Amino acid sequence: MQSLPMPSVTEFFAPVKEDLSTLSTNLKNLVGARHPILYAAAEHLFEGRGKSLRPAIVFLVSRATMIDRDITPRHRRLAEITEMIHTASLVHDDVIDTAEVRRGIPTVNHNFGNRVAILAGDFLFAQASWYLANLDNLEVVKLLSKVITDFAEGEISQSLTAFDSSFSLEDYLEKSFYKTASLMAGSAKAAGVLSGVSIAHSDLLFDFGKNLGIAFQIVDDILDFTGSTESLGKPAGSDLKQGNLTAPVLFALEEKPQLEGLIDREFSELGDLDKALALVQSSNGISRSRELAKGHIKLAVSSIEWLPSSPHKQSLIDLATYVLDRSF
Amino acid sequence: MQSLPMPSVTEFFAPVKEDLSTLSTNLKNLVGARHPILYAAAEHLFEGRGKSLRPAIVFLVSRATMIDRDITPRHRRLAEITEMIHTASLVHDDVIDTAEVRRGIPTVNHNFGNRVAILAGDFLFAQASWYLANLDNLEVVKLLSKVITDFAEGEISQSLTAFDSSFSLEDYLEKSFYKTASLMAGSAKAAGVLSGVSIAHSDLLFDFGKNLGIAFQIVDDILDFTGSTESLGKPAGSDLKQGNLTAPVLFALEEKPQLEGLIDREFSELGDLDKALALVQSSNGISRSRELAKGHIKLAVSSIEWLPSSPHKQSLIDLATYVLDRSF
Repeated sequence: MQSLPMPSVTEFFAPVKEDLSTLSTNLKNLVGARHPILYAAAEHLFEGRGKSLRPAIVFLVSRATMIDRDITPRHRRLAEITEMIHTASLVHDDVIDTAEVRRGIPTVNHNFGNRVAILAGDFLFAQASWYLANLDNLEVVKLLSKVITDFAEGEISQSLTAFDSSFSLEDYLEKSFYKTASLMAGSAKAAGVLSGVSIAHSDLLFDFGKNLGIAFQIVDDILDFTGSTESLGKPAGSDLKQGNLTAPVLFALEEKPQLEGLIDREFSELGDLDKALALVQSSNGISRSRELAKGHIKLAVSSIEWLPSSPHKQSLIDLATYVLDRSF
Repeated sequence: MQSLPMPSVTEFFAPVKEDLSTLSTNLKNLVGARHPILYAAAEHLFEGRGKSLRPAIVFLVSRATMIDRDITPRHRRLAEITEMIHTASLVHDDVIDTAEVRRGIPTVNHNFGNRVAILAGDFLFAQASWYLANLDNLEVVKLLSKVITDFAEGEISQSLTAFDSSFSLEDYLEKSFYKTASLMAGSAKAAGVLSGVSIAHSDLLFDFGKNLGIAFQIVDDILDFTGSTESLGKPAGSDLKQGNLTAPVLFALEEKPQLEGLIDREFSELGDLDKALALVQSSNGISRSRELAKGHIKLAVSSIEWLPSSPHKQSLIDLATYVLDRSF
């Protein structure tokens, strides 16, 4: 996709570029210090993806709520914890989905085996809990512990509802909150709490992260239908194949009743998956999903209107807009 | 083993029998409320083992430090968290070891598959962290978060040192602390903290749990050589077969240099494992391991001398003595 004029997401992170660079070094040291094999896994993990969207949000919110002051070591630690939790969940997801590649890079389970991947995920969750406790702020501990519970909840829900064509859009939004938005919501709010913002403002930061996260997930789910194998780092239609019913499919189901039968028989007959993909493509599922994402982005942006003007506030707004643009 | 005159471990739990029964009901509700499949796994888990050693220690310490007062809902929640963390670690251990049976009962991965087992473990860890945060006591949050880190640390260490004949007794004791004793130490201390005991006394409760846990692990490792398949619920010599070098082997290595070669080649030749087992049996490894466990039990008992007389204190002492007796 390098040939497209689309700006890279990292452009929006320019105001926190140094913060992210420090984070990357710290994470590798925090995680890999005692175990060479975890160090290798950590290198692999933290280098591989490189986008650092979640800690970037933490840094941007931290700096946008700490105008004229430097952010504290606790803000930095929060960003690190956020990335650890996110990474731990990816590592276990890949074991569960027996995924061999993520964003074009071999997974930990593929490179090091299930044993190391399960342990590395447990270790990251555990380290995150430990650093969290040492932030010495019970509200932040609660916020982020809730995120870890939500992850497990989202994964289990996804696991139990695969190929269930009675899965509703409401269920989908709830699952997307658990899987993706909870971390962005909880960590954006926690950054505000560490800056000492009011309760009303910290709740608005939660709403910002929540709506950004839901939009992000919807766009990700659209890209599963519109992206190329190269840009996705996995074959298009992978979600549908696994029975993961996302916004475009749920909207398409309203227009194309034939889709239901294909899903119910879990694409067991030759050509079923291609037929289903074509039905989604020819429906308004993708454009309606875009509208849905757009609504959440608007809510996200309006949740941070109260922030004083700063390059960091602007980056948060640009980032929200960019999330939406990814779907075109 | 029912024919032996050995008392059942549950006899020592008599003073907290009702507490344990409430705990068992609560755990099933806490874990299984939202997901039928987790409820099934939870039923399976919490019924299956039934021994509840760890929460029993929490209740006994709680009551022994709350003479003339009832224990609080926080003490109860701590006992539940302790059992959740322990169970989560067992579930993931069984996936990692691809174990089909534990104490004679099919494992979660065997009954429900790896996917559910990984998710159930993550969910239990997450729920434990969440309830922990809601105890509203930062010291307790830190103590138990450390335990979760130690588990991961112990597992990784065990994974990396398999078949490593240069593994020292010191390494073994450290690993045993991480794997087994850390939870007993951290939760015994946390129970004291919730009762408001002095720092000196809470540290002694940590030492009690630590030494009891290390002795418990040593005895478990002895039983792997002396127990029957029926009493162990798995074939004798399982640890050694997997390259897990425990106290009896480490002592035997000092007397029987031939053992080293067998371990180094990972019992790859026919009869190697039987030869190794015979070498351990004919050495003083088992009796020296018993002496080692005995020393830790003495330390454990002396760590709670300061507790006022009560049936609960007596149960803690009896329990410590019983742990040792299991090895005969």
